[in-house]
Amino acid sequence: MKHQKEFETLKEIFKKITDLRGIRRLLSWDQETYMPKTGQENRAAQVSLISSLIHELLTSEETGRLINAICEEVDIENSEDDLSVCIKHWKREYDRATKIPNTLVKELAYKSALAHETWIKAKKSKDFSIFLPDLSSLVKLSIEKAKCLGFEDHPYDALLDEFEPEVKTKEIEGLFKELVPETQQLIETLLTKQKANKATSLKGPFPIKKQKHLATIMANAIGYDLESGRIDTVVHPFSTKIGPGDCRITTRWNEKDFTEAIFSILHEAGHGIYSQNLPAEHYGTPLGESVSLGIHESQSRLWENFIGRSRAFWIYFLPIAKGFFPVELKKIALEEFLQAINKVTPSFIRVEADEVTYNLHIFLRFEIEKDLIAGNLLPQDIPDAWNSLFEKLFGLKVPDDSLGCLQDVHWSGASFGYFPTYTLGNIYAAMLFKSAQKEIIDLPILIELGLFKELFLWLKEKIYTQGKRYNSSRLIQKITGQEPQSKYLIDYLKEKYENLYY
Amino acid sequence: MKHQKEFETLKEIFKKITDLRGIRRLLSWDQETYMPKTGQENRAAQVSLISSLIHELLTSEETGRLINAICEEVDIENSEDDLSVCIKHWKREYDRATKIPNTLVKELAYKSALAHETWIKAKKSKDFSIFLPDLSSLVKLSIEKAKCLGFEDHPYDALLDEFEPEVKTKEIEGLFKELVPETQQLIETLLTKQKANKATSLKGPFPIKKQKHLATIMANAIGYDLESGRIDTVVHPFSTKIGPGDCRITTRWNEKDFTEAIFSILHEAGHGIYSQNLPAEHYGTPLGESVSLGIHESQSRLWENFIGRSRAFWIYFLPIAKGFFPVELKKIALEEFLQAINKVTPSFIRVEADEVTYNLHIFLRFEIEKDLIAGNLLPQDIPDAWNSLFEKLFGLKVPDDSLGCLQDVHWSGASFGYFPTYTLGNIYAAMLFKSAQKEIIDLPILIELGLFKELFLWLKEKIYTQGKRYNSSRLIQKITGQEPQSKYLIDYLKEKYENLYY
Repeated sequence: MKHQKEFETLKEIFKKITDLRGIRRLLSWDQETYMPKTGQENRAAQVSLISSLIHELLTSEETGRLINAICEEVDIENSEDDLSVCIKHWKREYDRATKIPNTLVKELAYKSALAHETWIKAKKSKDFSIFLPDLSSLVKLSIEKAKCLGFEDHPYDALLDEFEPEVKTKEIEGLFKELVPETQQLIETLLTKQKANKATSLKGPFPIKKQKHLATIMANAIGYDLESGRIDTVVHPFSTKIGPGDCRITTRWNEKDFTEAIFSILHEAGHGIYSQNLPAEHYGTPLGESVSLGIHESQSRLWENFIGRSRAFWIYFLPIAKGFFPVELKKIALEEFLQAINKVTPSFIRVEADEVTYNLHIFLRFEIEKDLIAGNLLPQDIPDAWNSLFEKLFGLKVPDDSLGCLQDVHWSGASFGYFPTYTLGNIYAAMLFKSAQKEIIDLPILIELGLFKELFLWLKEKIYTQGKRYNSSRLIQKITGQEPQSKYLIDYLKEKYENLYY
Repeated sequence: MKHQKEFETLKEIFKKITDLRGIRRLLSWDQETYMPKTGQENRAAQVSLISSLIHELLTSEETGRLINAICEEVDIENSEDDLSVCIKHWKREYDRATKIPNTLVKELAYKSALAHETWIKAKKSKDFSIFLPDLSSLVKLSIEKAKCLGFEDHPYDALLDEFEPEVKTKEIEGLFKELVPETQQLIETLLTKQKANKATSLKGPFPIKKQKHLATIMANAIGYDLESGRIDTVVHPFSTKIGPGDCRITTRWNEKDFTEAIFSILHEAGHGIYSQNLPAEHYGTPLGESVSLGIHESQSRLWENFIGRSRAFWIYFLPIAKGFFPVELKKIALEEFLQAINKVTPSFIRVEADEVTYNLHIFLRFEIEKDLIAGNLLPQDIPDAWNSLFEKLFGLKVPDDSLGCLQDVHWSGASFGYFPTYTLGNIYAAMLFKSAQKEIIDLPILIELGLFKELFLWLKEKIYTQGKRYNSSRLIQKITGQEPQSKYLIDYLKEKYENLYY
């Protein structure tokens, strides 16, 4: 192969970068799980050192020279062979890292660290004004960052691109345009239907030890390999890849409601299964990496919601759960249980939202972020903008900012552009699920029997083994034959709830 | 201050090196505690990357230039101010790292990785010949390493110096010359005395959960700060400093004998207390680091043996232990218990040895290592040399090499020169304990009352706060007024056992 030598050297550089990223993820995992609290300052220094080493390697003169040498002679934009895919992504990373001046990178890191503290304080005191100065700085710096990165249409494109490569603001607007009114209508219908049914609530307590046992069985059943993974307890659940053969998930436990941990674990196991099955032989190159946050989220949502909250899943698992909690679940019938875990409730907190209302929460944040980055909304006007749009969408008045614009951690880390990937995940998941149903014979029956391997293998072939070869839109199109669109998510929700309240 | 600028730059470089070492220790801690086994290969790559980054920083042209610039104008050998202490140790590190060629470093790392595997196999099969080829390579490479490092008297000096800076082979020979015959005589006397007493053995099972509770109380009582530390379960217990505010210890549990974990925890907590109380403001410089392995070991042995196996300690703790194990310990009287935990038994395995016979195990290894590195003993002759010296020392015939020269992990990692630090630790501990007894009024009474703070504060002032300001001999001399010598260890053992079989 031409450029073989340059390619090999780049592989070595990016293997180092990848190893350092794995190390950084272990530092974070440890911080959230087992690190003594007094280790905080030391850990911050360690993480910051690793980050600067990554930055040095990524932006080195050598890295740039090698990438440019290959780019001059290869049409990386229009090829999908291994070399082109790798160089394309490495160039993307190199460009993003070099376009932003070091001073801006450092200021963003520094202000984010401060903002995280003030955000916690502001949220606790339900007082947006505490957070406002730091948030204003972060918005200003993020606008500057977008300018440095460049964009054709909307400055928000530049930020979005970090989390969902090559997806544009306009495309997401299009997806929401279809999704939001349909969602609102569906909610209205469902609220009436739910009223007619008497509410069922699960009564505990459900001993944590038994929950752990049950959750482990489920994670294992759907294909999360516990031999090369583990489940630990944290405040905010996440999944993380330390490297090949070492992909960990975390959860929290609620003694009063065992389903909370179950769905959290199914969600994180969905991420974990994707991470575990990315091709290890390509580790260190884009061909061993996940496509985007949106595609990653499609995997967690697929297992958590499309499978995990389905009738078929609980036909298999409710009797098993009853084995663990014979007294607590004695009187719960399948249909009742399904209605309980699929209850639709307009509410204030995103992370507690159900499958239907969830995307409205994202739409709200997307609208505000877009306007902030375009300079059409000033940070001091966020609470008003939030509360007024929230009322339009949910018909509820936000009582205070801790239940409103202060609820999420993302802005304190300047992660503008992250939120839309949650809804993209739902949309992709619906499209993938539809295709899987078409291509896997009797999928619901397999699930009723606790047989998840067919679906796992389908996902493995279609997604996991592909690494970053295609961007999210192209991957979805290749698998489903369709451009990303909201139709399938809407259809899925309508059909699901139709069957829930027949 | 003159050279302030160079000094500051060196501080930055060595802070990075120190942070990377802390990260490497977290990688190892995680590997021994929670890492899925399948993460092994990835972890090896991460550790190796961090090691090479440390090596790059340490041996960089800039590091050498700055150190040499200061050395040309400052008499670092004869000053004990902060700058001199730091530069002296940094120069030492730089010299050691640059004197050994990269090819040798890499070959040693590579062969050690292989040797570790073959050692495990050989030990399992009780077949030294499996380990011999790799061991021979490591001995050869270590001899080469000693030559590169240089030495005045004995090539073993060069290797010893890595673990116990500035201590010479000859000095250790002198210590053993006094210690070995006295130890042999003491053992003979004790074996006769023990025969006269009927043996007591602790009968379990002791539930692990209760052991954990009791061990935590003890670690806390002697001064190990659990808020900035933690106790985890491993196969081979160790203590590790991830950084300021984060010093962890580990142990294993034996349901049949609760004292195993207790003494393991007192030992590791001794290390942990030292690590926790090194001056955090000097972290990243030699003034924030421990003196040597020998001094570190003196802290673990002091708490494990001199305090932990004393009458005073158990006057306080036996009633508490009985609270945890009322049935299991019902019939155990204090004197009986003390005799049980202090029983002297010539046996094959070093890590299971009692306080008295332990140093004979070290003497044996020291003799063999010295001869190996001097070229006076060939690796293939190790089993014969071992077994014959073992019989002379212990009066026992070694039945197979897994109970003989294959029992320890050290040689598979080419750690020649490490073993003597265990006995140095015992010798230092005895001298420190003697001084503490003189300087702290009523120390045994304080211990009987469970009041360990006076001793902790004494050690903190004398040792912990000093960092690496003095080498081990000089530190011991400053504290005790005496050169390191075996007399105090011998006296302590004689007196202790005198009181045990009065």
